[in-house]
Amino acid sequence: MIMRAVDLIRTKRDAGENSREEIEFLVARYTRGEIPDYQMAAWLMAAVIRGLGRGEISALMEAMLHSGEVLDLSEIAGKKVDKHSTGGVGDKTSFILAPIVAAGGLTVPMISGRGLGHTGGTLDKLEAIPGFRVGLSLAEFRRVLGECGMGLIGQTAEIAPADKKIYALRDATCTVENIGLICASIMSKKMAEGIDALVLDVKTGSGAFMQKEEDAVELAEVMVETAQRMGKKAVALITDMQQPLGRMAGHSNEIIECVEVLRGGGPKDLRELSVELAAWMFYLGERSVSVDEGRKLAGEMIASGKALEKFRRGIALQGGDARVVDDASLLPGARGRMEVRSATSGYVRDMNCMQFGIALAMLGGGRGKKEDEIDHGVGLEFHKRIGERVAAGEALVTIHYNSESKLAESKEIIFGSFEIGDKAPAARPLIRRIIGG
Amino acid sequence: MIMRAVDLIRTKRDAGENSREEIEFLVARYTRGEIPDYQMAAWLMAAVIRGLGRGEISALMEAMLHSGEVLDLSEIAGKKVDKHSTGGVGDKTSFILAPIVAAGGLTVPMISGRGLGHTGGTLDKLEAIPGFRVGLSLAEFRRVLGECGMGLIGQTAEIAPADKKIYALRDATCTVENIGLICASIMSKKMAEGIDALVLDVKTGSGAFMQKEEDAVELAEVMVETAQRMGKKAVALITDMQQPLGRMAGHSNEIIECVEVLRGGGPKDLRELSVELAAWMFYLGERSVSVDEGRKLAGEMIASGKALEKFRRGIALQGGDARVVDDASLLPGARGRMEVRSATSGYVRDMNCMQFGIALAMLGGGRGKKEDEIDHGVGLEFHKRIGERVAAGEALVTIHYNSESKLAESKEIIFGSFEIGDKAPAARPLIRRIIGG
Repeated sequence: MIMRAVDLIRTKRDAGENSREEIEFLVARYTRGEIPDYQMAAWLMAAVIRGLGRGEISALMEAMLHSGEVLDLSEIAGKKVDKHSTGGVGDKTSFILAPIVAAGGLTVPMISGRGLGHTGGTLDKLEAIPGFRVGLSLAEFRRVLGECGMGLIGQTAEIAPADKKIYALRDATCTVENIGLICASIMSKKMAEGIDALVLDVKTGSGAFMQKEEDAVELAEVMVETAQRMGKKAVALITDMQQPLGRMAGHSNEIIECVEVLRGGGPKDLRELSVELAAWMFYLGERSVSVDEGRKLAGEMIASGKALEKFRRGIALQGGDARVVDDASLLPGARGRMEVRSATSGYVRDMNCMQFGIALAMLGGGRGKKEDEIDHGVGLEFHKRIGERVAAGEALVTIHYNSESKLAESKEIIFGSFEIGDKAPAARPLIRRIIGG
Repeated sequence: MIMRAVDLIRTKRDAGENSREEIEFLVARYTRGEIPDYQMAAWLMAAVIRGLGRGEISALMEAMLHSGEVLDLSEIAGKKVDKHSTGGVGDKTSFILAPIVAAGGLTVPMISGRGLGHTGGTLDKLEAIPGFRVGLSLAEFRRVLGECGMGLIGQTAEIAPADKKIYALRDATCTVENIGLICASIMSKKMAEGIDALVLDVKTGSGAFMQKEEDAVELAEVMVETAQRMGKKAVALITDMQQPLGRMAGHSNEIIECVEVLRGGGPKDLRELSVELAAWMFYLGERSVSVDEGRKLAGEMIASGKALEKFRRGIALQGGDARVVDDASLLPGARGRMEVRSATSGYVRDMNCMQFGIALAMLGGGRGKKEDEIDHGVGLEFHKRIGERVAAGEALVTIHYNSESKLAESKEIIFGSFEIGDKAPAARPLIRRIIGG
C-alpha cells in the first residue's frame, strides 16, 4: 500500500485519527520538500478544526524531534533539567531559575525563543546584556553547560527543523491556535535538549496565550503526558497571568529585577514562583528528596550568593558583560519617565494584562513582525497589584520611554487596562493547580 | 482597514461567514498569484469542514466567473439555454439535447469537461468522432453557434481561470467534496456561457457523485438559487443514477446510442429523460408556453429528422466526420466481446453503478489521472435493468474490449456489482424531484 498525502488529509478532514506511520510520513516528507506547503496547510487546518488525539500529538512531536539533532549531554555528569513557560507579561523566571538550579548542582540547558505579539522573549531579554551571544553553536553550548551548568541559547538549525518549517506555515495559515500543535511544537524543542526532567509553567489569565484555565489545564496535561511518553519526568504548574509577574516589564528592567531576586529581594510573587519552580526542578532532577527540600535548597542558593555568582559566570561564558549584575547602568536604559495615574480611588479589581504587553511593544519593547528591532531600554513599572488600594491621582504604572511618538497611545492603553472599583476583589492564588509530577 | 488573507482564513476556521468583499479579495489575489497556494488550501479546508453559506457560495461563484471572460452572444438572436449534468455512467444526454433544442430554434452553447474517475466526459465522448475539435477558440465557438445553434467545447483559458486554478488545488488537498465549492465551480463556468436559462440534471444513486438524495437536493437548490441570483432562469431535475442511463457506456457506444434516440428509437429511459430535459430547455428558453408543449416540440424535432440533421451539421462545423451518424463503423471500435452472465436466476434487485464506471475505466475507457489516454472503442452494454428478471446463465453485460490484460478483473467487478434476488425490488422513478423552474 503506497501512502499518499491526500489520504492522510482526507482522514483528518473527516475527523478520523492519523496513524503514527502516517504522521511520520507527513512530517518527514514535508521537511524534505516532497510534500508541498499547500498539502501541509490543508492537513493543519483539518487538525485545528477536528483536533488531534494524544497518540497523534505524541507522534507529531516525535517526528518533529527526530527531524533534527537531539543533544547528547551524557559527558556531563548528573541530571539535566529545564523549565518551559508559555509566556506572558513580566515573565522572567528563566534568569532566576537557571542560576539557582545550576548552583544547586544540576545542569540546565535552556533553548528558548524570541518574543512575538504581546509577550517578551527570553532571547531578546538576554540581548539587553551587552555582548551576550544567544547564537552559540551546539558544540559551544555543550562546553558552556559543562563549565557552569547553565546555558541559554536560541533554536539552532539542527534542532527540530520540521518544527521551524511547520511553525512558519502555521503562522501564515491561521493554524497556530491548537493545543495539540502547540504541544508538539514546544515539546519537540524541549525533548531535543537531552534533558531528564521538565518543569512546565503554563500561564492562564488575561495576559496568557491560554486565557481560559481549562485550556491551560488541557495543554498542561497533554505536555506532561507527551514528556512522560518519552520517558522524561514532568510536572506542570498552572500559574496566574491575570496581572504581570513581578513589578517590571521590559528587557533591561526584567534583568534588573531578576538580579534583585537573586540577591534575596525583589517582588514577592516573582520570588515565590521562582522558588517554587526551582524546587520542582530540584525534585524532578533528584537533587532533593521532596519539593519542600527543593524549596530549602533554592533558598540556600540565593542566601549564599551562589546563584548570583552562577549568573555572573553564565553571562561571562556567553560573551556578556557580567558587570551588569552589579551596575544596572551598563544595561540599555530609557531617557524618559511618565506616570499613569488612577482617576478614582478604590481597589484594583482587575487588569487586562495582554494590553500591557501590547503597550510595551508599541513603546519599542516588542515586535509587530519578526524583522522588527527591539528597544531593550523601554519598560513598564507596575506599582499596584490586583486587590491593592489606590488613591485618586496615585501612580498605577511608570512608563520608561525613549520616544514620545507613541507615548500617548500607550498611556491610554495602560490606563484603560485597569479596573478600579469600590469592593475588594477575591484573592487570586499565584499557583492555581499542579499537574503531573 | 487593510484586508489580510489570514483574517479571512481565521473567520472561516472559526465557523464565521466571509463577506462578499473578502471572497472577492481572496479569489482575485489568489488568481493573480498574490495569495499563495498554502493560504488558499487552508481556507478551502476550513470551508469544506465548516461549510459555506448561500451568500458565500454566490460571491465565490461570481468572483470566479469574473476572473475570466463572459461570452457575449448578443449578436445571435433568440434565447440561449444550456443543460448541465453532475454526471454518471452512460450519461450522454448532451448529444441528444443540443441537436433537439437547436433544431427547435434556441441556441445551446455547451462548455463541458473531461471524464475523471468513474464518470465519462462529454469532451472525451465527442473525440470518438474522427476529426471533431473540442478546442475551438471563443471566436470560432461564437461562429459555430451563429451558424447552427449548437456548439460543444472545453473550458478555454479565458473562461473562469480562477476556477481552473482553485480546482487543481482542491484536487491535491482533499477539498473537492463540498456542495458550496462544487456549485461555485460548476456555475462559474455555466454563467460564462452567456446563457439566459439553465437546466440542471443532478444525479443521485450509486453511480452519482451525490450518492445520497438529500445531498443531490441540497446541491440542486444551491445551484438553482445561484443561477437565479444572476438573473437566469433555472430548474434542477433530481434523476436516478442507481443504474446506468441507457444500455450503453463507453465513448463510441454512447455516440451510437444517441443517434438511435435522435432517430426515434433507443432505450426508453434515455429517450424519456432526454425529452424531459429538452422540454424544460424549451420552456425556460421561452420557446414553448409550458413544459408539456416543450415535450411535444422535442418529439417533433426527433420525428421530423430535424434534430438528427442538426447533429450532422454540428459535427461537421466542428471538423468532425458527420458520416458517423449513418455509419457507426467509422467510430473507433472494440475487437473483442465477452459476456458477464448471472450465476442465479431471479430479479435484478440493485446495482453498484459506480463500479461499472471503474470497470470501464480499467478497460481503457477512462482515466486514472489527467494525463492518461482514452480508448474510445471499449464499452459496456447492459442487458438488464433493476427490476427485470434474469435467468441463470443469462447475459447481464457484454464487455467490448481491445486488450485482454485487465479483462478478468473488469469482469469480476461487473459481476460483483449486480444484486440478484428472489423478490422484485420496488420500482425506481427516473425523475425523482424537480427543484425551481
